[in-house]
Amino acid sequence: MSGKVVAIAGATGAVGEEMIRCLGELKFPVKELRLLASERSAGKIVKTPFGEISVQAISEEAFKGCDIALFSAGGDVSKEWRERVVKAGCLMIDNSSAFRYEDDVPLVIPEINADAAMKHHGVISNPNCTTAIAAMALWPLYKEFGLKKIIVSTYQATSGAGAQAMQELLDQTREVLEGRPAKAVKFAHPIPFNLIPHIDKFQENGYTKEEMKVAWETWKIFGDKDIKISCTAVRIPTLRAHSESIVIETEKPVNAEKAREVLSKMSGLKVVDDPSKNLYPMPLNVSGKFDVEVGRIRQNLVFGEHGLEFFVCGDQLLRGAALNAVEIAKLFI
Amino acid sequence: MSGKVVAIAGATGAVGEEMIRCLGELKFPVKELRLLASERSAGKIVKTPFGEISVQAISEEAFKGCDIALFSAGGDVSKEWRERVVKAGCLMIDNSSAFRYEDDVPLVIPEINADAAMKHHGVISNPNCTTAIAAMALWPLYKEFGLKKIIVSTYQATSGAGAQAMQELLDQTREVLEGRPAKAVKFAHPIPFNLIPHIDKFQENGYTKEEMKVAWETWKIFGDKDIKISCTAVRIPTLRAHSESIVIETEKPVNAEKAREVLSKMSGLKVVDDPSKNLYPMPLNVSGKFDVEVGRIRQNLVFGEHGLEFFVCGDQLLRGAALNAVEIAKLFI
Repeated sequence: MSGKVVAIAGATGAVGEEMIRCLGELKFPVKELRLLASERSAGKIVKTPFGEISVQAISEEAFKGCDIALFSAGGDVSKEWRERVVKAGCLMIDNSSAFRYEDDVPLVIPEINADAAMKHHGVISNPNCTTAIAAMALWPLYKEFGLKKIIVSTYQATSGAGAQAMQELLDQTREVLEGRPAKAVKFAHPIPFNLIPHIDKFQENGYTKEEMKVAWETWKIFGDKDIKISCTAVRIPTLRAHSESIVIETEKPVNAEKAREVLSKMSGLKVVDDPSKNLYPMPLNVSGKFDVEVGRIRQNLVFGEHGLEFFVCGDQLLRGAALNAVEIAKLFI
Repeated sequence: MSGKVVAIAGATGAVGEEMIRCLGELKFPVKELRLLASERSAGKIVKTPFGEISVQAISEEAFKGCDIALFSAGGDVSKEWRERVVKAGCLMIDNSSAFRYEDDVPLVIPEINADAAMKHHGVISNPNCTTAIAAMALWPLYKEFGLKKIIVSTYQATSGAGAQAMQELLDQTREVLEGRPAKAVKFAHPIPFNLIPHIDKFQENGYTKEEMKVAWETWKIFGDKDIKISCTAVRIPTLRAHSESIVIETEKPVNAEKAREVLSKMSGLKVVDDPSKNLYPMPLNVSGKFDVEVGRIRQNLVFGEHGLEFFVCGDQLLRGAALNAVEIAKLFI
C-alpha cells in the first residue's frame, strides 16, 4: 500500500476540516496532503494528523502529481476545475451536486455500490447528505424486503448550509435570548427557535431540489428507478446532524424484529432502539460520529404488514459528506 | 345573549393564560370569571380583559353557579373533579386526554364537528394539539376528495410540555451558548440544538401515545375509522407552534391547485403558499395567531394523482388548546 498525494479543495470549510480528520482517523496512506482554498485563505496554517500544512490558493499546479482530489468548495468551483483535474490524471471525488446526475459519473456510497466507483471516468460524485444518511438504513431493507414506496420528512441541521450558517444559528440565538430580533443572512428566514421548510431551490413540481435529490440519488445509487420516493426537507435549529422520519412500503412482508436484525448487520449503521430506556437516535448523540443511527423501528400502521416506520440520525458533515468522500478515496488505495 | 359564569382550572399555566386571552378576544360574554389553580398559586392577582382577578384554590364551591369550566390542569385534576363539576350543573370542557376516548364524551373541533358537542353528557373534550392543527387542513380535503391514508411527521414545540418546558429550552440554550452542558428536567434529554423523537409514553406497538392520538382522535372527530393513519412525533427546539409534514392518499383524484381552492375556504385555516416569495408556514409566523397555516402544497410523488403533500403550522397553545376550548364554549352562548 503505497502512499497517495491527496488534495482537498475547500479545505478551510466545515466539510474540508472533517475531510482532514477522516483521512487521519481512517488511516489513509497520505504521502502528501495539499490544502486548497480561495485566495482569501491562502497562507493559513492548519494543524492536521499529517503535520502543519499551509493552505494554498487553488491552481493548476496543485493537481500536478496529485492522485486524488476531494472537492468541497461548491458546485461552481467543481465545474471550473473538473477538466484540469482530470487532465492532470488526478481522481476527482466531488461533494457538490454538479455532476451527480451525469451518466458517466458514478454516485457512490462505498457500503452500497463500491463497484460503481470502479467505472469512473475521472470523477466520482459524493451523494447529498440527506440521501446518504437515509440510504444507510434503506439499502439493507431494500435488499431483504424490496422497496415500493419511500416517504421521508427531514430535520436538517444548519451545517448543511456551511460553517457560517452554523455560526448564524449560534449568534442569532444569542440575539434572541438577549431580547433582540434575529437576522437572517445565510437563511431565507430567522432560524433560532424556528424551522424553515425550504432547502435549495424550488422546482416546477413544487418540491425543492433538496427534496428531489433524495429521489434522484437513491434511484441512481440503488440502480432502481421503480421505487416511488417523496420527501419534505426542513431546516431546524440544530448544529450538525440530520434526522429523518421515514415510512416505507416493502415488496415482501416485514416486521420490526426482522428489520432490526437486517439493519444491525449493515456496516456504518447502528441500531439504537430501546424505548424502555429512552434510547433512540438524536442529533446530539451522533454529532462527530461515523455511524448513522436508526431507531423507533415499528410496523407502520398505514401499510400494515408491508410497512415499516423508523427514524435515522447521521452526522451531516461525516456520512453526509467528508466520511463518505474519504471512504470512496479508500477504494483506490 | 346573557353573560356566563366561567371557571378556568389551571388558570396560571401556559394554556390557562391563553384561555383568558381567548375569552377576551373572542368577546365571550363573561359575567364572572373564576381563576382556579393549585393552593400554591392561590391569592395571585391576574390582569384579565375582565379586570384583575384573584386566583383561588380549586374547590367544590368554585363550581357552584358556574356555567362553564375550562380545564387545563392535567388529566389527574380533570379526573378528580369531573363528577363534582358535572353534578354542579357546570359544563366541563377538558383540555386533557383523560376522557377523549369515552363514547359519551364528544371530542370537538367547532369548525368540523360542532354538532357532536350538542350531544354531551356534561363533559366535552378538546383534542390533542397535534391532531387539532392537522385536522384543520385534513377536514376540507376529506370532505372534497376522501382520505384513504394519512402519514404525518411532526415538529413539536416545547410549549406542548408546558410553560416550564419552554423556560427549560431558553435557560438551557443559554447554558450551552456559555459553554456549559445542557441539563434535562422536563424532557428525557437535553433539548437545545437537539431533537427528541419521543413524546408521551411508548405503546406496545412501538408508537408513542402522542403518535396514536393523531389516529384515535382524527377517527373520532371525522367519524371515520377506515382512514389509515400513522405518525412520528418529534420534539424540536422551538417555543410555541407545532409544525407537521403530511402526505395523504385520497379517494378521488386531487391536485395542488384544487386542494388550495378547497383549503382556502376553511374557516380557521390560512393558505400561505408562494414559494416564489419564500412564503410557507413557519412557527415564528403563527405564534400567537388563531389561524393554522398550510403551505408547500404539491402533488405527492408516491401516490401520484391520488396523492398530496403539504406542511401545516399552528399555535400549539391556541388552536392546539385554548382557542379550540373557548370556541367550544362559544357554542353554548
